Amino acid sequence: MRAGTVALVGAGPGDPELITVRGLARLRCADVILYDRLVDRRLVDETPPHALRIYAGKACGAHTLPQSEINALLVAHAQDGRRVVRLKGGDPFVFGRGGEEAEALARAGIPCEVVPGISSAIAVPASAGIPVTHRGVASSFAVVTGHDGDDGAGVDWSRLATGVDTIVVLMGLASLPRIMDTLVAHGRAASTPVAVISAGTTAAERTLVGTIADIAAAVKLADLATPALVVIGEVVAVRDRIRGGHAGIERDLSASDVEEPVAT
Amino acid sequence: MRAGTVALVGAGPGDPELITVRGLARLRCADVILYDRLVDRRLVDETPPHALRIYAGKACGAHTLPQSEINALLVAHAQDGRRVVRLKGGDPFVFGRGGEEAEALARAGIPCEVVPGISSAIAVPASAGIPVTHRGVASSFAVVTGHDGDDGAGVDWSRLATGVDTIVVLMGLASLPRIMDTLVAHGRAASTPVAVISAGTTAAERTLVGTIADIAAAVKLADLATPALVVIGEVVAVRDRIRGGHAGIERDLSASDVEEPVAT
Repeated sequence: MRAGTVALVGAGPGDPELITVRGLARLRCADVILYDRLVDRRLVDETPPHALRIYAGKACGAHTLPQSEINALLVAHAQDGRRVVRLKGGDPFVFGRGGEEAEALARAGIPCEVVPGISSAIAVPASAGIPVTHRGVASSFAVVTGHDGDDGAGVDWSRLATGVDTIVVLMGLASLPRIMDTLVAHGRAASTPVAVISAGTTAAERTLVGTIADIAAAVKLADLATPALVVIGEVVAVRDRIRGGHAGIERDLSASDVEEPVAT
Repeated sequence: MRAGTVALVGAGPGDPELITVRGLARLRCADVILYDRLVDRRLVDETPPHALRIYAGKACGAHTLPQSEINALLVAHAQDGRRVVRLKGGDPFVFGRGGEEAEALARAGIPCEVVPGISSAIAVPASAGIPVTHRGVASSFAVVTGHDGDDGAGVDWSRLATGVDTIVVLMGLASLPRIMDTLVAHGRAASTPVAVISAGTTAAERTLVGTIADIAAAVKLADLATPALVVIGEVVAVRDRIRGGHAGIERDLSASDVEEPVAT
């Protein structure tokens, strides 16, 4: 029997054309695909007709496959000699638990290939016209999640608040008010620009811009949907210049400030 | 005349199959391509035979196109009605000066599309078996360059040193001894694992592993080549588990520790 393999493939930030050439090639040769909730259906449909499709998503509140079960499925299908693709939103190693899956496969002696994906942390701000670094404005950026407790060590905001120029928070919508308060408590200026981007890189992308002081109230008014990403730092103001002045940073934060994506 | 356009396309970290599907599509429709030094020649060769190919690279010490000239070329060719692709290593907005080019195009009223690329900051550690985040080990990461002065604001190491779990330094080979000293001076444990990865994701990939205390001496001995990336943090130790124990973290740092890439 042919030896099975597993490819941990990053699907990218939302737009299906932002998968890598190699990632797409792996999908098209898959015997089995395990895919997450935020993965575009068109990518799943790139697998051959015979491929077994397993939904491993984590819809809010719904019953989902526990990580241990996902690991076991990957191992079992590979041990049966199949080409398994584990398709994950963004990049497998950026808060994707891909490292745990790679560990489980290594323990079982199964060849595992990691195919990186475009991380939302960088591409979603870009889609909204915000570079995470910009000459003379930002020469460092950090990426964290808003779900401290969910991910082990947590974040030392007392140092991070002023330790980098740009801070990107994934899954930060629910904890936005707390994070903004924490940043100010640890010395970040309340006037620092902030953008919240919902459904980045997709047709449903919406962006709200404000400051640390007022963004939480604006987001509440605008009723932005998840998934959403928060960008904090002066780079948010670069957006004006990159968008050619079409879309100024609105200061009268209301739901009408929710803007269309930059053409991509 | 047809209106010209510019696509700022990220080529990814080195391996040409790590470009996005959209990025490749843009190359295949280009009338003009301006490309950087670290871009794989096979990607440049994806442009049509009629395409004008302009090398805008920045080889060390050699004469190169100044940024203002690159901006002017992009504008001029687009104004002539051409489909211009600006192909940059990694992601255009991660220390790629893509933001400056996007600004110049916006000022000239030229439609500009940003096609993100896989950033070396995440994919090169992944290629060496190191996830930048890992449950229970690292829930935050920061990305900086070793060229402080080159990029405006610089990095506040006094806070960054202990502000995030994982620190990724791009272009950090020349300043490695200074950065390691600075990290210790600002409270990061000298025993923290460090990996230096040269030519990541390519056939020439080599990885050297040590600690903040000893990595600089080891790199000097091993004579690693640029481009190189430095990863600092406990995630470096996860590499052992992901690589299935094939390649332990060597403690007798010598040139023989320079390891082959994980299969990708």
